Order: sequence, then C-alpha cells, then structure tokens
Amino acid sequence: MAAAVTPPRGMRDFLPAEKARREHALGVIRHSFASHGFDEIETPVMEDAARLHSGLGGDNEKLAFAVMKRGLGPADAAAAAESGDLLSLADLGLRFDLTVPLARFYATHRAELPTVFRAIQIAPVWRAERPQKGRFRQFMQCDIDIIGEAGPLAEVELITATAAALDALGLTGCSIRINDRRVLAGLLAHWGIAPELTDRALITIDKLDKIGVDGVVAELTSLGIAAAGEADEITATLHAIAGAGWDLLADAPPAWLDVAAYDDLLALRGAMPGIRLVFDPTLVRGMGYYTGTIFEIAHPDLGYSLGGGGRYDGMIGRFLGTDVPACGFSIGFERIVDLLPADAGAGVDAVVLVHEKDADPAALVTLKAELAAGGNRVRLERRAKNLKPVLERAAAAGYTRFAFVGAGVTDAASLEFKPLA
Amino acid sequence: MAAAVTPPRGMRDFLPAEKARREHALGVIRHSFASHGFDEIETPVMEDAARLHSGLGGDNEKLAFAVMKRGLGPADAAAAAESGDLLSLADLGLRFDLTVPLARFYATHRAELPTVFRAIQIAPVWRAERPQKGRFRQFMQCDIDIIGEAGPLAEVELITATAAALDALGLTGCSIRINDRRVLAGLLAHWGIAPELTDRALITIDKLDKIGVDGVVAELTSLGIAAAGEADEITATLHAIAGAGWDLLADAPPAWLDVAAYDDLLALRGAMPGIRLVFDPTLVRGMGYYTGTIFEIAHPDLGYSLGGGGRYDGMIGRFLGTDVPACGFSIGFERIVDLLPADAGAGVDAVVLVHEKDADPAALVTLKAELAAGGNRVRLERRAKNLKPVLERAAAAGYTRFAFVGAGVTDAASLEFKPLA
Repeated sequence: MAAAVTPPRGMRDFLPAEKARREHALGVIRHSFASHGFDEIETPVMEDAARLHSGLGGDNEKLAFAVMKRGLGPADAAAAAESGDLLSLADLGLRFDLTVPLARFYATHRAELPTVFRAIQIAPVWRAERPQKGRFRQFMQCDIDIIGEAGPLAEVELITATAAALDALGLTGCSIRINDRRVLAGLLAHWGIAPELTDRALITIDKLDKIGVDGVVAELTSLGIAAAGEADEITATLHAIAGAGWDLLADAPPAWLDVAAYDDLLALRGAMPGIRLVFDPTLVRGMGYYTGTIFEIAHPDLGYSLGGGGRYDGMIGRFLGTDVPACGFSIGFERIVDLLPADAGAGVDAVVLVHEKDADPAALVTLKAELAAGGNRVRLERRAKNLKPVLERAAAAGYTRFAFVGAGVTDAASLEFKPLA
Repeated sequence: MAAAVTPPRGMRDFLPAEKARREHALGVIRHSFASHGFDEIETPVMEDAARLHSGLGGDNEKLAFAVMKRGLGPADAAAAAESGDLLSLADLGLRFDLTVPLARFYATHRAELPTVFRAIQIAPVWRAERPQKGRFRQFMQCDIDIIGEAGPLAEVELITATAAALDALGLTGCSIRINDRRVLAGLLAHWGIAPELTDRALITIDKLDKIGVDGVVAELTSLGIAAAGEADEITATLHAIAGAGWDLLADAPPAWLDVAAYDDLLALRGAMPGIRLVFDPTLVRGMGYYTGTIFEIAHPDLGYSLGGGGRYDGMIGRFLGTDVPACGFSIGFERIVDLLPADAGAGVDAVVLVHEKDADPAALVTLKAELAAGGNRVRLERRAKNLKPVLERAAAAGYTRFAFVGAGVTDAASLEFKPLA
C-alpha cells in the first residue's frame, strides 16, 4: 500500500486552486456562448461502439477507449480469440470528440429542436494516445455548432461568439486565420497534384508552420506527390503566399485562386469588422470532414492554435439519411486555461477562522454561517503549534484574511481579521 | 439509417431547457458548498481496475463498467477464455461512486492538502444497473467530505452546509434523520442477534420504511436471524421506536440504547438549533463502511431520501496504510433536480431577433453583439411563412421577447420588442 498511488496513466487530478481556475474559465465561456444565443446540451460520455466506429471520427476512432459488455463468459472470449476481433467484446466506447455525439443527438431529437440549432457542448473527451507534455487521455472540449444554416451567417455567429468568449477570458491579441477548402483544392490542382493524392498532400501542407516551405516541398517530392518542375512552382507559390494575407490580391488575383471562395471569405471579413480575420490559403485543419470554410485561433506569442473549426455539411446527415448543413468552432480549453493568470476566478472574499481544538462546534458553525451568508467563503482551521504552514496553505488556496476565534466570541462583528501574507 | 438512433441504454441526453435547469442547480450547490469552506476537486472518470475492485465499494463494485486494455490480441482473449477471468482484459473502469476516487486522491495528494481537508466533488458516476424508472446508468453525484477531523465538528459542518444548499435551491421542509452505528449495534445485541448476522440483519431493518414492522420481523425470522421469542421483543421495540424521535427518552432510556452514542447525537442537535434533526434508531444506510454517525435527508412529501452520509473512519486509510478519520454527505442530485420548478435558472432576459432570409449578416451580428453585451441572451431566427411554431419553441426554451429586424435597422434601440406568449 506504500507504493505510489496515482491517477490512471495520462489522466489528471485537479486540486482546489486549479479546479477553481478551470470552473471559472468554463463559466465565462458558457455564459459568453449562451448570451450569443447558443443552447447547451449534454450527451452521455459513452456511445454505442458501432456508432463511434462509423468512420465519422477519422483517425480518432482508433483512439477510443472500449467498454466491455457486461456478463461475458469464457465462450465469448474464446469466440474473440477465434475471430481475432477483440472489439466484439465491447458494445460501448468513450467519446473521442463531441462531433460524433452531436450528430447522434441531432438525429435522436431533431423534431424537438429549432430549424437552425445552435448547440453548446462543454464536456470531457477521452483518447488513448501516448501521454506526453500537454497531451492528455482525458481533456475538456468547448464546442459550439450551428446545424441547419447553409449561409455565411453560421460562420459569422460562430466566430463572433468565440471571439467574445476569448475577450471575456481576458485573452487579448488573438486573430482568426481563415481559409476555404475550395482554395486549397485550387492550389493543389494548379500544382498538378492528382485528385487521389490531395488528402496526403494536405497532411504535408498542414506542417508548413513546423517544417517551413523547403520542408513541405521536400516531403511532397519524396512522397512522389510533386515532380521536379512542380517543386519549383510549389516553392514559388508558398513564398508568395507567406504572410501576404488579404494583400495577396493587391495586384491581380493569382491564377490558382478560387475567386468565388475568396469573395465569400472577403464577405465574412466585411461582416466582422471588429475581429482580426487573416486569410491564409495554406491553412488545412486536420479533419477530413470539412467541406468549406475552415478557421483557427492564432495568438501572437504561441506557435500552436488555440482552437478551430469549419463547415462540415456532409456529416450530420450520416445518422439521419438526409443532408443537413453544419458548421462548428471548438475552443482548445486545455491550452487556454494554461494562459490565464493563476488567480483567475478567485476574487471572492475568503476568510479563515482559527479555533482551539476544543472549541464549541455550535459557536463555530454559527460564526461560519453568518460569514457565509454575507458572501464570504469560510474555512475553519484548528490552532496548531506551528500555524505558519497552515496559513500559507490557505493563502495558496485563495484565502485572503484570517482571525482567531476566542472563547467568548459569538458574533462575526467582534472578530479581528488580519490579512494572509 | 432510418432506424431509431438513441443514446446507450439507461443513459440520457439533456436538451437545452433541462440542461439549463441542471446547470443552474449544480451552480447553486457548488456556490453554497464553497461558501461553507469546502474546496472543489476533480478526478478522472476512470480509475485503475484493481483499485475500483479493492472491496471499498461494496456491491457497487459489481456494477462497474470495465474499460478494455488497448492493443489486445487473440492470445489475450484465449488466455481469458482459459482462465475464465474476463476482467483480465480490462485495466481501467468507470467510477461507480465518488468515495473510492476520493480515497485514492487523498492518498496521492495528502502532502499538498490541509490537515483537515474539506472536499467538494460534483461529477457523474456510472453503474451497469438494470435501467428502470428513476434509475440511470450515468448520473450526477454531489458529495462533500471532511477528511482528518475526528470530532463532531465534521458532522456539524457537513450537515449545515448541506442544509444551506437545500435552502439555496428553495427546497423547504426537509429534515435530517440521524442515527449512530453504535445505537444499531446496541439494538441488535439486545435482540440477541449474533455478531456474524448483524450485517444481514441491517439489510432487513433498512427496509422498515417499505415493508413495515411486521415485514421486518417476518424476514428476520424466515432468514433464521430471529427466533420466536426474539420476534416478539423486536416487534415491541420497533413499535416503541416508531415516530418517537428524541422523545424516546422522555422517561428512562431504553435498555438497548447506547447512551454515549445518544449523548453525542444530542450534542449535534444542540450545535445546530436551526436544523430539524430527527433521531431514528432504525436508520441504517446501506454502505457497510460507515463506522459512527449516519444521516439522511427526508422530505415530508416523499417516500425516499434526498441524500445521506455518515462517518467512515476506516476507509480513507486503505490506500494510505494509516487510519484517517472521515465523514461525508452526498446530495441525491437526480432526485432533487426533479423537484425544482421547470423554469429554475431561466430568469435571464432572452430575446429572439426575426430576420429575412437574405438579411445582411454583418448588421444582424452587430445587433446581436449589442444586445448580448447588455446582458441579454440573443437568438436569431429566420422569418418563416408560419412563424408561430418557431416562436413557441423559443418560448419553451426560455426566450421572453421577440422583434422583427427590418431592412434599415442598425441599432438595437430602434427594435420593437413584443412578448413571447
């Protein structure tokens, strides 16, 4: 029993100070999304295994934790050994994202939902990834999605609501990189990349931030996706694009640009003058299910995005049998919460009452209730020989003042509070 | 794909109105507990299987959902078929309560926690029970626990904080039934029930509310726990106890009463004059791990309890190797949320803007942001031929006013709001 007792590999406990920061941030995000007309829903953490593995989740499906059927016996294990299909022993799985559950939820409840449904989902997801710095097996996602709106109003509502949430969290200086899958398709066609190679080519282009123009061109060449002549053209185009943003069209539009898609992006920019939208024709976003606009939150000090999303018109209909337009935006909660100040969400007046070991419980609880009713958080601490570490721990947990409760004290007004260091 | 698409068996989706009610209630409970000096923590939903099945969870251990190891092959299945131990294929499990994870958390983080640690846990748990009315396979628990306090201050803080939460939710008329395991032990000894039969006898006595005095006596007799002479004595004692409460001692204390335990309960009553504490010597509470005081929330209109808890001094130490006193109180959230008014937590001014299909997104979103910044929740709805069902749905979702956005409208002040029916 003396061996280290820890949470499961890749999963975290949250102690009071960190839990308070997280709940504060989630509350701000929830309130911000709700005030922009989105409605929060909740689905169970598990979905039927067949639905999780229906192909909508891309590579993440392989990372799903599988939940075993109940009441299995040796014969079931023997059958699985025979067939080699170990997943036949599982009937449920933990969700690896909030999009597959949303598609299932919409199919279940469509008749009860508004024609244009604006959903908030703030909930944990699970992925059996190799644990590493900043990557966890249980983590929070904060998603908003608009289902049933085919026009640009969906993108505008999603981006303004997300920007408002970032503002409310005090995260300044963020911009939104934006692109359209049609622009990417035009680029690949211009480079002569065959349609059957475009998915693989996009995986490489997605690494542009990390490996640079030369790295991308080298990888496309070594994979046989780009020939020698194409490589020169790809290099030239990527250099012309780099950092140009909307200025790319300062002169004539480049030959590869899907001008209709670009005009749609320009219209989005015009509809949100208060938000820094940056056009980036090389923005890919991983998920294969995007069909139109894609976007990502960029922060000037960070080499990674703080969230992203896009339009995925084909997907919601998969459980429904009919096509429904959809667009979503997901905030990278775990990254964002790390950027908030350590005392975010404290703020409440929190006091410690130090009492003798044999103090009368009735008197203590009366004092406590009186202070709590006045809006304080109140913690009782027994007087110790060495009080310093006790008070230091309370200060670290966000408590700001303390007072000794003497033998005769019966009302809070007679307490003498001192500040906690 | 046209077949019914539903959440997994025994699990629930929450649509916006229900989700809002739940989040409101959870927020009230969280705030109330925090103001009473409890600190919220969080643990992962999964724990190592060996820890979940260490005997601390009683019968609930059998109800744990098992999570399969990753990367299993046919040889693993064959080995499980051979040994008959299907759980050898699982290394993790979903928690079935919040007490086992709390014991594990405390063992992991003891050095970072205050000497007396007051924990809040508000989180879902999972049990593979046969689904039935009011019983779900995923449900919320709201627990507070005090670890490291052996004296009655723990009980007093837990009961006053819970009573404050019920008050804050607007649930009036609740009382707290209270007992001590020592009182039960005295009762069983007085009836001549052998020590090795007491656990089984308590299971029967726990049914007193449902099957009555005669039912209890019949069951104890048929199980061979009570002999004929004892049965008469049991019947007489139970009738004397029924409804007596503290008045049981109006004359001399009954011979079976553990007077020291009774005096401790009386002291608790004296420490909480504002709370209706009702002494019930037949209160059992199911869990085998309770060692002292036990208590339960009773509501005059309901035949079931709204939560309960007690002292479990032996348990936290199991992962730690040393004994630590502990006491906890759990609110039955799923039952309580059903008692709240349907519109609990609405209250915010929520408005609908009805716009033409081809309205300018920029103008709409500017209006929306202006209203949201003023504290409103704002939903956009496209004008439809038949607007009535659209507005009815919005009203059901808690929206209170609507306005048409005409072509020229650019600021919120010129909108003409009408009430939603």
